[in-house]
Amino acid sequence: MTQNIYDDPVFFAGYRRLGRSVEGLSGAEEWPALRALLPDLQGLRIVDLGCGFGWFCRWAREQGAAEILGIDVSQNMLAQAQAATSDPAITYARADLETLELPEASFDLAYSSLALHYVERLPELLAQVHRALVPGARLIFSVEHPLYTAPSRPGWSVDAAGRRTWPVDLYLVEGPRTTDWLAAGVIKQHRTIATTLTLLIRTGFTVCHVEEWGPTDAQIARRPELADDRQRPIFLLVAARR
Amino acid sequence: MTQNIYDDPVFFAGYRRLGRSVEGLSGAEEWPALRALLPDLQGLRIVDLGCGFGWFCRWAREQGAAEILGIDVSQNMLAQAQAATSDPAITYARADLETLELPEASFDLAYSSLALHYVERLPELLAQVHRALVPGARLIFSVEHPLYTAPSRPGWSVDAAGRRTWPVDLYLVEGPRTTDWLAAGVIKQHRTIATTLTLLIRTGFTVCHVEEWGPTDAQIARRPELADDRQRPIFLLVAARR
Repeated sequence: MTQNIYDDPVFFAGYRRLGRSVEGLSGAEEWPALRALLPDLQGLRIVDLGCGFGWFCRWAREQGAAEILGIDVSQNMLAQAQAATSDPAITYARADLETLELPEASFDLAYSSLALHYVERLPELLAQVHRALVPGARLIFSVEHPLYTAPSRPGWSVDAAGRRTWPVDLYLVEGPRTTDWLAAGVIKQHRTIATTLTLLIRTGFTVCHVEEWGPTDAQIARRPELADDRQRPIFLLVAARR
Repeated sequence: MTQNIYDDPVFFAGYRRLGRSVEGLSGAEEWPALRALLPDLQGLRIVDLGCGFGWFCRWAREQGAAEILGIDVSQNMLAQAQAATSDPAITYARADLETLELPEASFDLAYSSLALHYVERLPELLAQVHRALVPGARLIFSVEHPLYTAPSRPGWSVDAAGRRTWPVDLYLVEGPRTTDWLAAGVIKQHRTIATTLTLLIRTGFTVCHVEEWGPTDAQIARRPELADDRQRPIFLLVAARR
């Protein structure tokens, strides 16, 4: 089973205070870029893999989606998601993405925001998603960028000339990485871009768009600390077609 | 015009002594991985973008390719390539990849080894290549990996704990990078993986395989210094279909 860090009290207490938890989609800097990859949602059946507080599920419903299934492993997050809507077109289900089973040919869009880097058995999950999508359907997701996850000791460094750099090692050494973020011992799976894309292609998806997300000038003007993400991207965005 | 560094006497004197110049394909560590992406060459019409000394052109002919057009901007390299064969199925032409024009629907395979990172006008070149390939034809190429090209001051660093790292900055800041390699002032174009793949997709190609190349255990046993390439890959390999 994936580490269910979102039900860790210390982690959750920190996570629920983040901009993206309080403000929802508009509190996530990469959301405009991810949204730009989405098709018209009118009438679509959508599955959200790692739905968290359900911000995307509710937004998708506002855009006219017909049915939305939000999946998450965290009881904490599902409880809040459930409490935030009474819309019968939105269903939440608790499941581990490592062992998720979905009904065949039942969705027009699979969406996932910053969840797949927790999943160890990604090939199996992608096969499930492929099977659950109808032909021509889309899979659109974000994950943490491998430049962000790779290092044995992630962090910024300042050299003698004052140059701020992100020292990389172990980039091609894939597998678990344990970091302290909001709580000690958060486990993520480091995968290269090539591995993620090749898994998609082998599963039968066509890669439509790949984006190593960086902040816009306007975003940096509002939040100068985002400039670091131009030195070393933090998010990878992918759109694929079944 | 692309900087024609291969006709710089200092650069060329160094380059001609590299393993991959002396031994050909077998002197290039990434060759087995690149070769694995190639289709059966029997009867194919091939264009080699940046053919250098013509090692691939001659090898492709041995594999049964019907016609091979080798393109390069370097007079030095083309002279050696030409001198190494009298096979009428192999043609060499001097051209700048920035402004290359190819006949329409005339090739079954476009191949390029470590040349496209010199090209500034890559969208225009890819459009030419797409037009020159028949439907179903392949484009298979290697370029320097953006982790290798990104930094303002590329090089390894050793921290207080003895950890060897590759400090990255400017990853999302695309454009020319000037480094001293064999000669001073070698200019390459830094592009992210996402940009390269998105250019391919927008041009009409389907991405079939993406590989961030790393050495095998056997290669590291023979040449221990290659272990660095697992910390930070140096080559990106791509296969696409028209």
